[in-house]
Amino acid sequence: MPPTLSPVLQLTCELIRRASVTPDDAGCQALIAARLAQCGFRIEHLHYGEVDNLWAVHGGDGPVLAFLGHTDVVPSGPAQSWASPPFEPSLRDGLLYGRGAADMKGSVAAFVLALEQFVAAHPQHPGKLALLLTSDEEGAARDGVRRVAETFRARGERLDWCVVGEPSSSTRLGDVIRVGRRGSLSGYLQVHGVQGHVAYPDKALNPIHAFAPALAELAATRWDAGNADFPPTTFQVSNIAAGTGASNVIPGQLDAVFNFRFCTESSADSLRERSEAIVRRHGLQFDLRWDLSGEPFLTRAGPLRAGTVAAIESVCGISTECSTGGGTSDGRFIAPLGADVVEVGPVNASIHKLDEHVAVADLERLPALYLAIAERMLLHA
Amino acid sequence: MPPTLSPVLQLTCELIRRASVTPDDAGCQALIAARLAQCGFRIEHLHYGEVDNLWAVHGGDGPVLAFLGHTDVVPSGPAQSWASPPFEPSLRDGLLYGRGAADMKGSVAAFVLALEQFVAAHPQHPGKLALLLTSDEEGAARDGVRRVAETFRARGERLDWCVVGEPSSSTRLGDVIRVGRRGSLSGYLQVHGVQGHVAYPDKALNPIHAFAPALAELAATRWDAGNADFPPTTFQVSNIAAGTGASNVIPGQLDAVFNFRFCTESSADSLRERSEAIVRRHGLQFDLRWDLSGEPFLTRAGPLRAGTVAAIESVCGISTECSTGGGTSDGRFIAPLGADVVEVGPVNASIHKLDEHVAVADLERLPALYLAIAERMLLHA
Ligand SMILES: [Zn+2]
Ligand SMILES: [Zn+2]
Repeated sequence: MPPTLSPVLQLTCELIRRASVTPDDAGCQALIAARLAQCGFRIEHLHYGEVDNLWAVHGGDGPVLAFLGHTDVVPSGPAQSWASPPFEPSLRDGLLYGRGAADMKGSVAAFVLALEQFVAAHPQHPGKLALLLTSDEEGAARDGVRRVAETFRARGERLDWCVVGEPSSSTRLGDVIRVGRRGSLSGYLQVHGVQGHVAYPDKALNPIHAFAPALAELAATRWDAGNADFPPTTFQVSNIAAGTGASNVIPGQLDAVFNFRFCTESSADSLRERSEAIVRRHGLQFDLRWDLSGEPFLTRAGPLRAGTVAAIESVCGISTECSTGGGTSDGRFIAPLGADVVEVGPVNASIHKLDEHVAVADLERLPALYLAIAERMLLHA
Repeated sequence: MPPTLSPVLQLTCELIRRASVTPDDAGCQALIAARLAQCGFRIEHLHYGEVDNLWAVHGGDGPVLAFLGHTDVVPSGPAQSWASPPFEPSLRDGLLYGRGAADMKGSVAAFVLALEQFVAAHPQHPGKLALLLTSDEEGAARDGVRRVAETFRARGERLDWCVVGEPSSSTRLGDVIRVGRRGSLSGYLQVHGVQGHVAYPDKALNPIHAFAPALAELAATRWDAGNADFPPTTFQVSNIAAGTGASNVIPGQLDAVFNFRFCTESSADSLRERSEAIVRRHGLQFDLRWDLSGEPFLTRAGPLRAGTVAAIESVCGISTECSTGGGTSDGRFIAPLGADVVEVGPVNASIHKLDEHVAVADLERLPALYLAIAERMLLHA
């Protein structure tokens, strides 16, 4: 007979068994919606394209606290390279293994437990307690929280505080929370030359040579110096390609993809302008297409940061570091609605890797942590 | 009943019908060997790998004049894009169409006619008259004249003068001959970095950024100033590639292919040294593999140039320009044996293209031109 599992461990295992590779929700949200409906949450399913989004709300007037998470996971990679099948939860040495264990089905399960416990203890609580889930965080992120935020804006849905369950912790649960994220801006550059034979360079225009000094200047540019909350803006070329494969042909075109991770000292507009000016100054013929993934956001010291730090101290017994590092998260879509956003979740060392796992002890402390944040924000704020 | 064709036109058509896409000879050399054997040439077939080479010799002691050509052709490209099938010779408006018509089955047929006429008229000529053909000029050029030249060197086979049938003419038959060629040196560079996520550039080393200033310096370097016989050495990057395709990953490696076309003011060794020094000075971790296709060669004013110019003047009625332009040719393998080398053949405007063709009037003058060169070199020199 199998041992009895804690409720959060049991729900996390049920979610891992649903192989919800982005943007497939694989039934995770239906399971959660049924549980939350049973304890009085109003449920709204927002389907956009292939993406499932869930909005569950409890309570009425007053400040709004939303927990935000995603049910989708990144692909497992070769399943036979895992020590145990990626979509079969497996307990070994105090760790729960499975794709999504840390990013972020453990957090999502803990949200559900925390919400159930909160409304059971405080059925008439002030303010509004909500859960927003998407199945499009790990993928294109177009029909997920981005679209939900548009809907919220259109109907005047207010959010005051948002707690994102992304795995923010570095080595111990709660040692790091994210209070902001850098912006991300990608450029797709095509430099036009004139194809020809390497023996006759006078009749050709080599886009590799034409681009070289501009590339060197872009790579050497210091875009800003960062500030107290953010490191300096970075620029990285991720892909460059030119050439027909033949070694005797000067190519007619060069393609480069680059990305800015930028802090609040720069804006997407200023970076676009400055980098285009560099390319233009070198006399290139070019096309440049931009993709703004998100502007930077920052939640300054205030009730949400204070409440989260205090909850961590009481539940985990450690003090926490407020960081703005890391990649992007769905917080970038919620912050522009005017909400304060913090991200707090389990240790991220194994996410997106083979043998992803979460410590069972951390997982079993997470519901209490999210519950403590909810109590601080809605009952004592 | 079809019209009677001139002997050189007839033989050119027979060669075009043999679809000898490099390195396939498709029976061209057997046909030619049989004809030359019949008029007293000693025939030697030199097979290396997939390549057929033919060495046909007439005469004994004294100076050696060799005609050099290739029976292979470049692929036709899409046959349906030709006005007539590429391996069906077609006469239209005074032009003979077919793959190889200009490069260089017309020249090869003219060689055969000239040799036949020469030995018929001068059966006891002084010196040695020879024909060297390969089926590996348009391809890898490893088992063709390069290998034959090694064999010649090993057995002490002497060559004094070599006339290559490459299509050297620009707008009129004989307006340009080549008296040298630049060298060609290719480099295959791999720059090593450390892969990572664009959000964490501190943990990665972007080989695109690392290479950028070195690339800019290589592209801006003036390698030499050329000289009276050659234009300056040129450097061209033909291919560059880095990136996983994902826009959020800093690649771990960059590959670049470049090529020097170099004159006698530089050597392969000096260019290798100088370019490696630039790459090293920028502190790159790299591997660099070299491929020397050929050192430059130059045939200075002397009997072969004078004889060829005079033959063109007498047969074509025009004065000729002695050039060192263009790509590489098999002359690069013969010149180091100590031979003077000139290249003279039909107009090259259509070579390697769809609807390749040669003017019938030019083709029919070619045997007389090669015959006149042979007479000047072996009878009057
Ligand atoms: Zn996540
Ligand atoms: Zn050729």
